[in-house]
Amino acid sequence: MQQTIMKLYDMELSGNCYKIRLFCALLGLDYQSVAVNLAAGEHKQPAFMLLNPRCQIPVLEDDGVLVQDSTAILAYLARKYGEPHWLPLAADELANVMLWLAVAQNELLYGLARARAVKKFSRPWNFEECQALGKTGLTIMENHLHNHSWLANDQLSIADIACYPYVALAAQCEINLGDYPGILQWMERIQNLPGYVGMPGI
Amino acid sequence: MQQTIMKLYDMELSGNCYKIRLFCALLGLDYQSVAVNLAAGEHKQPAFMLLNPRCQIPVLEDDGVLVQDSTAILAYLARKYGEPHWLPLAADELANVMLWLAVAQNELLYGLARARAVKKFSRPWNFEECQALGKTGLTIMENHLHNHSWLANDQLSIADIACYPYVALAAQCEINLGDYPGILQWMERIQNLPGYVGMPGI
Repeated sequence: MQQTIMKLYDMELSGNCYKIRLFCALLGLDYQSVAVNLAAGEHKQPAFMLLNPRCQIPVLEDDGVLVQDSTAILAYLARKYGEPHWLPLAADELANVMLWLAVAQNELLYGLARARAVKKFSRPWNFEECQALGKTGLTIMENHLHNHSWLANDQLSIADIACYPYVALAAQCEINLGDYPGILQWMERIQNLPGYVGMPGI
Repeated sequence: MQQTIMKLYDMELSGNCYKIRLFCALLGLDYQSVAVNLAAGEHKQPAFMLLNPRCQIPVLEDDGVLVQDSTAILAYLARKYGEPHWLPLAADELANVMLWLAVAQNELLYGLARARAVKKFSRPWNFEECQALGKTGLTIMENHLHNHSWLANDQLSIADIACYPYVALAAQCEINLGDYPGILQWMERIQNLPGYVGMPGI
């Protein structure tokens, strides 16, 4: 189905970029990774801002279509290349996926990912506040995964891919996942998927 | 199409709840509003946590289905009751809607909505930091709306509904929308939609 090779504007240590690398690996999609040097401010240069005015990675270029934002890219790839379980379209099933995409963009991104960025990239946010928000997200996930295999609709979806990276990196924001046994089992299920790839720190 | 009346767990001054009230009004859907008293901590009581373990409003109850999270509810209503333009399913069109839903959940929610909550509800966040993030979101929107009528795919979608409330409330976080003429025209287009309803402060 793929006509030309996709380009992923990418950074190895970005959990948001890893979401896309992981999903492409699970779907068996080839892509060319184009490294964006955030430390050097490359994402704020005019050339990159033409690709994404929000100055954020990842950005995907596929057959002339530009897709920005990790969640939007997951939805795009699911609809274009994935089986229906990745993003079911029935109203209630779609809502269940959207709910966990929202957790990924709220508790996990503004909690876990920001707390990690304070420690790892010396970002200026309040570590305790971010860590606490992240733990709220982990507790919500744990309560659900205690008796479910997957986050939405009891089937693998882009919600699992969106939530996995910053959860799996939780040690880097000083959170011990040993307190969350349901999450650990869910992570193992993801790690056992055919095609799975990791990233530094996971 | 509607069988029993929907219940919306709601708060008048919540921009996230207003997203759902506005969308229901535009779709001509009836619902019963159930007020949740956040000031009294009702959202953290066990009875409410059965409806939403994230302790957040809005929550929608429709024919026995519980939907949490404002973005997920918009997607649910669009798929169940809306015309296709509200949430198009082609990969690239869906991605465009998802991108602006992400802006609503990031720059607008953690920027504009948090800055408003500092002023209006004495929440503990850093006002300047939130306001700056909100202005980043407004600039991205302005650059797009400068030559587009709607946020995604040049047609009205749930992205417009998701972004509208906290933008329209920007005066409450001390931002003058006079600096954003494209946004003002877009707001007027929304306000002229048949069925439009406002909220206090808009």
